[in-house]
Parts: sequence; C-alpha cells; structure tokens
Amino acid sequence: NVPPSTSVEQQPPCQTAAQWEGRASEWDHVQGRNNRFLISFDGVGLRKRVIEEKKSFMPGRRFYEYLMEYKTNTMYTINMNLQTCTVSQLKQPWQNHTIPSDATLEDEYEMGDPGSGLHVQEWSDRLPARRSESWIGIYTPKTENGGCWPVVEVFTDDTTDPPVSLTTRFFDITPGIKNMSVFVPPSFCPPSDDFEPPITNQY
Amino acid sequence: NVPPSTSVEQQPPCQTAAQWEGRASEWDHVQGRNNRFLISFDGVGLRKRVIEEKKSFMPGRRFYEYLMEYKTNTMYTINMNLQTCTVSQLKQPWQNHTIPSDATLEDEYEMGDPGSGLHVQEWSDRLPARRSESWIGIYTPKTENGGCWPVVEVFTDDTTDPPVSLTTRFFDITPGIKNMSVFVPPSFCPPSDDFEPPITNQY
Repeated sequence: NVPPSTSVEQQPPCQTAAQWEGRASEWDHVQGRNNRFLISFDGVGLRKRVIEEKKSFMPGRRFYEYLMEYKTNTMYTINMNLQTCTVSQLKQPWQNHTIPSDATLEDEYEMGDPGSGLHVQEWSDRLPARRSESWIGIYTPKTENGGCWPVVEVFTDDTTDPPVSLTTRFFDITPGIKNMSVFVPPSFCPPSDDFEPPITNQY
Repeated sequence: NVPPSTSVEQQPPCQTAAQWEGRASEWDHVQGRNNRFLISFDGVGLRKRVIEEKKSFMPGRRFYEYLMEYKTNTMYTINMNLQTCTVSQLKQPWQNHTIPSDATLEDEYEMGDPGSGLHVQEWSDRLPARRSESWIGIYTPKTENGGCWPVVEVFTDDTTDPPVSLTTRFFDITPGIKNMSVFVPPSFCPPSDDFEPPITNQY
C-alpha cells in the first residue's frame, strides 16, 4: 500500500507487452450498457481486432467483428452472421492499453481473497495539484517473464462527440498473437478510403 | 469460461460474509472523478462507515468520514480535520455489496497474469430477453473458508436525482469488523432526526 502523502521517488511504470490477446467485459457509462468481446491487440502495428458478443433479446446471438487500424484511421465493421462488411473512418480515440510513462502511481493493493489475491498497482493520469484523473489503469506488476498486464481500465475522453466513458475488465490474457491474419480484413470487405488520422492523444 | 448460450442450470450465487472491512477505489461516472476510501461494512446492522481520502489541489490532505445507517436512513458526515459533524437523510441508494440471489451468471475468467491470476465470476442483474443489466458484480468464487469477495462492482441507479453510476474496485479486504465502535457516531455529532426510509431496491 503506497501512502500517497510520502515523498517517495516515483517509480516509472512498467511496460506491457506490445502484442497480446484476451477477453474483456466493458461497461459503457455513456450508453449505460455492458459489452463483452475478444480482443487481439497489436501495439506494434497499432491495430485491434475485436469480436463483440451481443446478447440479443431474441433467440440467437449476434456477433460483430471490428478491425481497427490506427495508422490508416480505418475501421472495418463485419457482421459475422451475414458476412457483410462496411468501412468507415475510425472515430473512437485510440486506447493503447499501456501505462503512460508520466502516469502517477496511486496505490498498490490486493484484490480478491485476503492473503491469496491478486497484487496490482493502480496508476492514473492525475497531475498532483494540477489536474484530476481522466484515465485509471490497474495493472499487475512487472515480473521477470512478463507481468504488467491490464486488469481494469477506466478510460474517458470528453473531447469526442459523443464523449467516451468506459470501464474495462481484461481477462484470459495470452501474450503474443496466435495468428497475425486476424488483422487482415476479410475478402468481402470493400477497399478502404484514405482517412485523415485523428488529432487526439494516443493512450 | 461459461458459454452463455448453453442451457446450463444456473448455479445460485455465493453469499458474501455479512461483515468485512477493506479499501476501495471508485470511479464516479456522473461526477467524472475517482474517490478512494476505507470501508467497514455491516450487512447485519445495515451500516457502513467510509473514510474518504481526498487528494487536495492544495498541500495537505483532507479526510471525510461518512457513517451510513440504512435502518434509520441517517447519514453522518464528519470532517475529520475540523472535528465537525452534520446529520442528514441518507439519499444514496443502499449497496449491499452482495450478489442478488436471482443474478445471472455472465462469465468466469482469470484476471491478471496468465496462469497465475485471480479466478472470478461475473454476475449481473440482466434478465435474459427482458432487461439489460444495471448492476454487474465480479466476485471471487466461494471457498471452504470464505471466498465470495467483491472485486469490481458496476452499480447504477437512474431512479435517483442525480443518477448514480459507479465502478468500484474493492481490495485489501479482511473478514469481520475489527472494532464495532466504528459504527458509533462521534460524540460531537448532533442527535439524528427521524428520517423516512427510502423506497428503493436494496442491492
């Protein structure tokens, strides 16, 4: 537990592996709903592939796949049931799912059962005495072989329209990308247009 | 991992211990800010004692203590620096920090480092085909000696004014209450008035 009032030299945050896959459950505070998805994250090529599970009110479940290319500012939206695909400009702010190098270490603690829980560090983008937080990241500590995995992230951005306010729980993470072809748009997708990259902070 | 589309007989949720203490970090989506606090929870007497840590923009930290009595619908707000106390009607909806008995099991997964993380269950108050979720609880599974501890809770209530939308991370939990006197209002608090209990659902 870090007593925030002590003048401890701030340790630099650990760095998460650049490529990984996993699952997430995300509460969207603006929409007031929860989304669950599989994610393949490529922090090298700045691409994300998300397969979203939608619990339908009618029998049968619908699956949507989203392919996000930050470098080309392109989003492919794929209806997996109908095998259709649309291409659009990437409008969501890019979440890098890493701890910013200038983040503030807020706390360290144990989640779960007392004595046998998960040790994590909570970081934020709060600037003490200057700016309150708009991003909070709970990550495991760095270990010899890895660690520094995201556990929970609060991500907000009120510069976009509509604003973004998400709390994401990450889980079932595996390092690396099993098959890089997941980032290749399906053949039935139209070619992408040239989209201007957004002028937003990359988190 | 629970495939939600299979017709598995829903297991009843585990029950969290009625009394415990711990710490929490809570993102308030309505206010757009994060609050950190110590909590002593009495699910028997329906009382909560919260010591909130406020990171001040000016040097020096301010501490506020809140004593919430659901049975009498009373809230004591104590400024710990000034040793002052006000009494008011409890307006926030009561969070019971347990899994409702009719909750839907959404998923089971491992948070943290692959292979050495924390196994949890994610529950919600979603009624399949009828109502989307307004509460999500991530809890550890029941164990012989305990378990069933809250890890993350998304709690929303749009019947109140202003509405409530919180994501709370619980940690450093210890079973039981070390000293029951934490629920006794300080002597410098005025006596409480008679407040009508609220007509809201008890979560």
